[in-house]
Amino acid sequence: MRLTRQTNHAVRMLMYCAVNPNRLSRVGEIASAYAVSELFLFKILQPLVEGGFVETVRGRNGGIRLAMPARDITLRAVVEVTEESFVLAECFETGATDCPLIDSCALNAALRKALNAFLDVLGGYTIEQLAGEKSAMRQRLGLFEPLPVAMASF
Amino acid sequence: MRLTRQTNHAVRMLMYCAVNPNRLSRVGEIASAYAVSELFLFKILQPLVEGGFVETVRGRNGGIRLAMPARDITLRAVVEVTEESFVLAECFETGATDCPLIDSCALNAALRKALNAFLDVLGGYTIEQLAGEKSAMRQRLGLFEPLPVAMASF
Repeated sequence: MRLTRQTNHAVRMLMYCAVNPNRLSRVGEIASAYAVSELFLFKILQPLVEGGFVETVRGRNGGIRLAMPARDITLRAVVEVTEESFVLAECFETGATDCPLIDSCALNAALRKALNAFLDVLGGYTIEQLAGEKSAMRQRLGLFEPLPVAMASF
Repeated sequence: MRLTRQTNHAVRMLMYCAVNPNRLSRVGEIASAYAVSELFLFKILQPLVEGGFVETVRGRNGGIRLAMPARDITLRAVVEVTEESFVLAECFETGATDCPLIDSCALNAALRKALNAFLDVLGGYTIEQLAGEKSAMRQRLGLFEPLPVAMASF
Protein backbone atom coordinates (compact mmCIF):
# COMPACT_ATOMS: atom_id res chain seq x y z
CA MET A 1 0.00 0.00 0.00
CA ARG A 2 1.58 3.21 -1.11
CA LEU A 3 0.70 6.75 -2.07
CA THR A 4 1.88 7.86 -5.49
CA ARG A 5 5.12 9.80 -5.90
CA GLN A 6 2.91 12.57 -7.30
CA THR A 7 1.13 12.99 -3.98
CA ASN A 8 4.36 13.01 -2.05
CA HIS A 9 5.84 15.79 -4.19
CA ALA A 10 2.59 17.74 -4.44
CA VAL A 11 2.69 18.08 -0.66
CA ARG A 12 6.33 19.17 -0.79
CA MET A 13 5.59 21.79 -3.46
CA LEU A 14 2.76 23.21 -1.36
CA MET A 15 5.06 23.29 1.68
CA TYR A 16 7.69 25.14 -0.33
CA CYS A 17 5.15 27.78 -1.36
CA ALA A 18 3.85 27.95 2.22
CA VAL A 19 7.24 28.88 3.64
CA ASN A 20 7.91 31.28 0.78
CA PRO A 21 4.84 33.49 1.01
CA ASN A 22 6.33 36.86 0.16
CA ARG A 23 7.33 36.12 -3.44
CA LEU A 24 6.58 33.81 -6.33
CA SER A 25 8.39 30.45 -6.33
CA ARG A 26 9.85 29.22 -9.59
CA VAL A 27 9.25 25.55 -10.37
CA GLY A 28 12.94 25.25 -11.27
CA GLU A 29 14.06 26.33 -7.81
CA ILE A 30 11.60 23.92 -6.15
CA ALA A 31 12.93 21.11 -8.35
CA SER A 32 16.48 21.97 -7.27
CA ALA A 33 15.54 22.09 -3.58
CA TYR A 34 14.01 18.61 -3.72
CA ALA A 35 16.42 17.17 -6.31
CA VAL A 36 13.66 16.13 -8.73
CA SER A 37 13.02 17.03 -12.35
CA GLU A 38 11.23 20.21 -13.30
CA LEU A 39 9.09 18.32 -15.80
CA PHE A 40 7.82 16.02 -13.04
CA LEU A 41 6.81 19.00 -10.89
CA PHE A 42 5.06 20.67 -13.84
CA LYS A 43 2.93 17.55 -14.25
CA ILE A 44 1.95 17.64 -10.59
CA LEU A 45 1.20 21.33 -10.79
CA GLN A 46 -1.83 20.82 -13.00
CA PRO A 47 -4.08 19.09 -10.44
CA LEU A 48 -2.91 21.54 -7.76
CA VAL A 49 -3.97 24.48 -9.94
CA GLU A 50 -7.24 22.78 -10.91
CA GLY A 51 -7.87 22.02 -7.23
CA GLY A 52 -7.53 25.70 -6.42
CA PHE A 53 -4.48 25.25 -4.16
CA VAL A 54 -1.92 27.00 -6.37
CA GLU A 55 -1.99 29.85 -8.85
CA THR A 56 0.52 30.53 -11.55
CA VAL A 57 1.81 33.86 -12.74
CA ARG A 58 3.23 33.82 -16.25
CA GLY A 59 6.14 35.82 -17.59
CA ARG A 60 9.84 36.32 -17.03
CA ASN A 61 9.35 37.03 -13.33
CA GLY A 62 6.51 34.54 -13.05
CA GLY A 63 6.15 31.58 -10.77
CA ILE A 64 3.67 29.90 -8.50
CA ARG A 65 2.13 30.72 -5.12
CA LEU A 66 -0.58 29.34 -2.89
CA ALA A 67 -4.04 30.35 -4.03
CA MET A 68 -5.43 29.98 -0.51
CA PRO A 69 -3.95 30.19 3.01
CA ALA A 70 -1.78 27.17 3.95
CA ARG A 71 -3.95 26.65 7.04
CA ASP A 72 -6.96 26.03 4.78
CA ILE A 73 -5.31 23.30 2.67
CA THR A 74 -5.73 19.92 4.35
CA LEU A 75 -3.64 16.89 3.51
CA ARG A 76 -6.88 15.07 2.72
CA ALA A 77 -7.82 17.66 0.11
CA VAL A 78 -4.40 17.34 -1.53
CA VAL A 79 -4.44 13.54 -1.54
CA GLU A 80 -7.91 13.56 -3.03
CA VAL A 81 -6.78 15.52 -6.08
CA THR A 82 -3.36 13.94 -6.56
CA GLU A 83 -4.05 10.23 -6.02
CA GLU A 84 -5.26 8.77 -9.26
CA SER A 85 -7.37 6.13 -7.58
CA PHE A 86 -8.67 4.99 -4.23
CA VAL A 87 -9.69 1.65 -5.68
CA LEU A 88 -8.20 -0.39 -2.84
CA ALA A 89 -9.13 -3.72 -4.37
CA GLU A 90 -10.37 -5.00 -7.71
CA CYS A 91 -13.89 -5.40 -6.35
CA PHE A 92 -14.14 -1.59 -5.93
CA GLU A 93 -14.32 -1.35 -9.71
CA THR A 94 -17.75 -1.95 -11.14
CA GLY A 95 -17.69 -4.81 -13.57
CA ALA A 96 -13.91 -5.19 -13.35
CA THR A 97 -13.93 -8.48 -11.52
CA ASP A 98 -15.61 -11.81 -12.03
CA CYS A 99 -15.41 -12.72 -8.35
CA PRO A 100 -18.53 -14.79 -7.56
CA LEU A 101 -18.76 -13.07 -4.17
CA ILE A 102 -19.14 -9.58 -5.61
CA ASP A 103 -22.66 -9.07 -4.25
CA SER A 104 -22.28 -10.79 -0.92
CA CYS A 105 -18.76 -10.28 0.39
CA ALA A 106 -18.22 -7.63 3.04
CA LEU A 107 -14.57 -6.95 2.10
CA ASN A 108 -15.46 -4.00 -0.06
CA ALA A 109 -17.43 -2.35 2.78
CA ALA A 110 -14.62 -3.02 5.29
CA LEU A 111 -12.01 -1.45 3.01
CA ARG A 112 -14.19 1.57 2.32
CA LYS A 113 -14.62 2.15 6.05
CA ALA A 114 -10.86 1.81 6.60
CA LEU A 115 -10.15 4.24 3.74
CA ASN A 116 -12.53 6.79 5.25
CA ALA A 117 -10.70 6.50 8.58
CA PHE A 118 -7.40 7.06 6.73
CA LEU A 119 -8.70 10.15 4.94
CA ASP A 120 -10.34 11.51 8.10
CA VAL A 121 -6.95 11.56 9.84
CA LEU A 122 -5.41 13.38 6.87
CA GLY A 123 -8.26 15.89 7.07
CA GLY A 124 -6.89 16.92 10.46
CA TYR A 125 -3.56 18.10 9.05
CA THR A 126 -2.97 21.29 7.08
CA ILE A 127 -0.05 22.34 4.90
CA GLU A 128 0.66 25.05 7.50
CA GLN A 129 1.04 22.39 10.22
CA LEU A 130 3.18 20.14 8.03
CA ALA A 131 5.56 22.94 7.19
CA GLY A 132 6.06 23.50 10.91
CA GLU A 133 8.36 26.28 12.01
CA LYS A 134 8.68 28.45 8.94
CA SER A 135 12.18 29.93 9.42
CA ALA A 136 13.88 26.56 10.04
CA MET A 137 12.17 25.02 7.03
CA ARG A 138 13.21 27.94 4.81
CA GLN A 139 16.83 27.29 5.72
CA ARG A 140 16.50 23.60 4.91
CA LEU A 141 15.06 24.53 1.51
CA GLY A 142 17.89 26.93 0.76
CA LEU A 143 15.67 30.01 1.09
CA PHE A 144 18.18 32.10 2.96
CA GLU A 145 16.91 35.65 2.73
CA PRO A 146 15.04 36.36 5.99
CA LEU A 147 11.27 36.68 6.00
CA PRO A 148 9.78 40.08 6.80
CA VAL A 149 9.39 40.23 10.60
CA ALA A 150 5.63 40.00 10.43
CA MET A 151 5.83 36.71 8.47
CA ALA A 152 8.73 35.05 10.27
CA SER A 153 6.51 32.81 12.38
CA PHE A 154 2.94 31.62 12.33
CA MET B 1 -3.51 4.00 -3.21
CA ARG B 2 -4.24 0.34 -3.65
CA LEU B 3 -3.84 -2.97 -1.84
CA THR B 4 -1.94 -5.65 -3.72
CA ARG B 5 -3.75 -8.31 -5.71
CA GLN B 6 -2.13 -10.78 -3.31
CA THR B 7 -4.00 -9.33 -0.34
CA ASN B 8 -7.26 -9.33 -2.22
CA HIS B 9 -6.97 -13.01 -3.10
CA ALA B 10 -5.54 -14.03 0.25
CA VAL B 11 -8.75 -12.79 1.85
CA ARG B 12 -10.80 -14.69 -0.73
CA MET B 13 -8.87 -17.93 -0.10
CA LEU B 14 -9.44 -17.61 3.63
CA MET B 15 -13.14 -16.97 3.02
CA TYR B 16 -13.32 -20.07 0.84
CA CYS B 17 -11.78 -22.19 3.59
CA ALA B 18 -14.05 -20.54 6.17
CA VAL B 19 -17.22 -21.60 4.37
CA ASN B 20 -15.82 -25.06 3.69
CA PRO B 21 -14.89 -26.15 7.19
CA ASN B 22 -15.78 -29.83 7.06
CA ARG B 23 -13.22 -30.92 4.48
CA LEU B 24 -9.91 -29.89 2.95
CA SER B 25 -10.07 -27.40 0.07
CA ARG B 26 -7.87 -28.02 -2.94
CA VAL B 27 -6.05 -24.98 -4.30
CA GLY B 28 -7.19 -26.01 -7.80
CA GLU B 29 -10.86 -25.81 -6.87
CA ILE B 30 -10.35 -22.39 -5.20
CA ALA B 31 -8.58 -21.16 -8.33
CA SER B 32 -11.53 -22.34 -10.44
CA ALA B 33 -14.07 -20.70 -8.14
CA TYR B 34 -12.36 -17.32 -8.40
CA ALA B 35 -11.14 -17.71 -12.02
CA VAL B 36 -7.47 -17.10 -11.15
CA SER B 37 -4.40 -19.24 -11.74
CA GLU B 38 -3.46 -22.00 -9.33
CA LEU B 39 0.17 -20.83 -9.38
CA PHE B 40 -0.86 -17.38 -8.20
CA LEU B 41 -2.78 -18.85 -5.26
CA PHE B 42 0.14 -21.10 -4.32
CA LYS B 43 2.34 -18.03 -4.05
CA ILE B 44 -0.16 -16.34 -1.75
CA LEU B 45 -0.48 -19.50 0.32
CA GLN B 46 3.05 -19.21 1.70
CA PRO B 47 2.56 -16.07 3.84
CA LEU B 48 -0.82 -17.42 4.98
CA VAL B 49 0.80 -20.63 6.19
CA GLU B 50 3.72 -18.75 7.76
CA GLY B 51 1.25 -16.40 9.43
CA GLY B 52 -0.49 -19.37 11.02
CA PHE B 53 -3.82 -18.79 9.26
CA VAL B 54 -3.80 -21.85 7.00
CA GLU B 55 -2.42 -25.36 7.26
CA THR B 56 -1.70 -27.70 4.41
CA VAL B 57 -2.20 -31.44 4.28
CA ARG B 58 -0.07 -33.20 1.68
CA GLY B 59 -0.99 -36.22 -0.41
CA ARG B 60 -3.52 -37.32 -2.97
CA ASN B 61 -6.44 -36.30 -0.78
CA GLY B 62 -4.57 -33.33 0.61
CA GLY B 63 -5.52 -29.69 0.57
CA ILE B 64 -5.69 -26.65 2.81
CA ARG B 65 -7.83 -25.59 5.76
CA LEU B 66 -7.90 -22.80 8.30
CA ALA B 67 -5.38 -23.31 11.09
CA MET B 68 -7.46 -21.20 13.48
CA PRO B 69 -11.15 -20.28 13.77
CA ALA B 70 -12.31 -17.79 11.12
CA ARG B 71 -13.60 -15.52 13.92
CA ASP B 72 -10.01 -15.16 15.21
CA ILE B 73 -8.52 -14.04 11.87
CA THR B 74 -8.85 -10.28 11.47
CA LEU B 75 -8.55 -8.49 8.18
CA ARG B 76 -5.77 -6.43 9.73
CA ALA B 77 -3.75 -9.55 10.53
CA VAL B 78 -4.13 -10.79 6.96
CA VAL B 79 -3.20 -7.46 5.39
CA GLU B 80 -0.15 -7.24 7.63
CA VAL B 81 1.27 -10.50 6.29
CA THR B 82 0.24 -10.15 2.65
CA GLU B 83 1.03 -6.49 1.90
CA GLU B 84 4.67 -6.26 0.96
CA SER B 85 5.07 -2.76 2.26
CA PHE B 86 3.30 -0.06 4.22
CA VAL B 87 5.80 2.51 3.07
CA LEU B 88 3.19 5.12 2.16
CA ALA B 89 5.73 7.62 0.92
CA GLU B 90 9.42 7.67 0.06
CA CYS B 91 10.22 9.43 3.33
CA PHE B 92 9.12 6.32 5.28
CA GLU B 93 12.22 4.57 3.98
CA THR B 94 15.34 5.31 5.98
CA GLY B 95 17.98 6.81 3.74
CA ALA B 96 15.89 6.29 0.61
CA THR B 97 15.23 9.95 -0.02
CA ASP B 98 17.35 13.05 -0.23
CA CYS B 99 14.49 15.34 0.72
CA PRO B 100 15.99 18.21 2.73
CA LEU B 101 12.93 18.19 4.99
CA ILE B 102 13.43 14.61 6.16
CA ASP B 103 14.04 15.57 9.80
CA SER B 104 11.58 18.39 10.13
CA CYS B 105 8.52 17.65 8.00
CA ALA B 106 5.41 16.31 9.72
CA LEU B 107 4.11 14.47 6.63
CA ASN B 108 5.61 11.18 7.73
CA ALA B 109 3.93 11.39 11.16
CA ALA B 110 0.59 12.35 9.60
CA LEU B 111 0.67 9.41 7.20
CA ARG B 112 1.65 7.00 9.97
CA LYS B 113 -1.30 8.13 12.05
CA ALA B 114 -3.63 7.75 9.06
CA LEU B 115 -2.25 4.28 8.32
CA ASN B 116 -2.87 3.24 11.93
CA ALA B 117 -6.47 4.42 11.66
CA PHE B 118 -6.83 2.38 8.45
CA LEU B 119 -5.43 -0.77 10.08
CA ASP B 120 -7.48 -0.25 13.25
CA VAL B 121 -10.67 -0.40 11.20
CA LEU B 122 -9.51 -3.60 9.50
CA GLY B 123 -8.78 -5.02 12.96
CA GLY B 124 -12.50 -4.84 13.64
CA TYR B 125 -13.39 -7.27 10.83
CA THR B 126 -12.86 -11.03 10.89
CA ILE B 127 -12.87 -13.56 8.07
CA GLU B 128 -16.01 -15.03 9.66
CA GLN B 129 -17.78 -11.67 9.34
CA LEU B 130 -16.58 -11.12 5.77
CA ALA B 131 -17.82 -14.53 4.68
CA GLY B 132 -21.26 -13.60 6.01
CA GLU B 133 -24.02 -16.14 5.73
CA LYS B 134 -22.20 -19.40 5.16
CA SER B 135 -24.78 -21.34 3.12
CA ALA B 136 -25.39 -18.56 0.58
CA MET B 137 -21.67 -18.04 0.13
CA ARG B 138 -21.11 -21.77 -0.39
CA GLN B 139 -23.59 -21.71 -3.26
CA ARG B 140 -21.87 -18.73 -4.85
CA LEU B 141 -18.56 -20.59 -4.67
CA GLY B 142 -20.01 -23.71 -6.27
CA LEU B 143 -19.86 -25.73 -3.04
CA PHE B 144 -23.19 -27.41 -3.47
CA GLU B 145 -23.17 -30.29 -1.04
CA PRO B 146 -25.00 -29.12 2.09
CA LEU B 147 -23.10 -28.49 5.30
CA PRO B 148 -23.78 -30.79 8.25
CA VAL B 149 -26.71 -29.26 10.18
CA ALA B 150 -24.47 -28.24 13.08
CA MET B 151 -22.23 -26.21 10.76
CA ALA B 152 -24.84 -24.67 8.49
CA SER B 153 -24.81 -21.33 10.25
CA PHE B 154 -22.53 -19.49 12.63
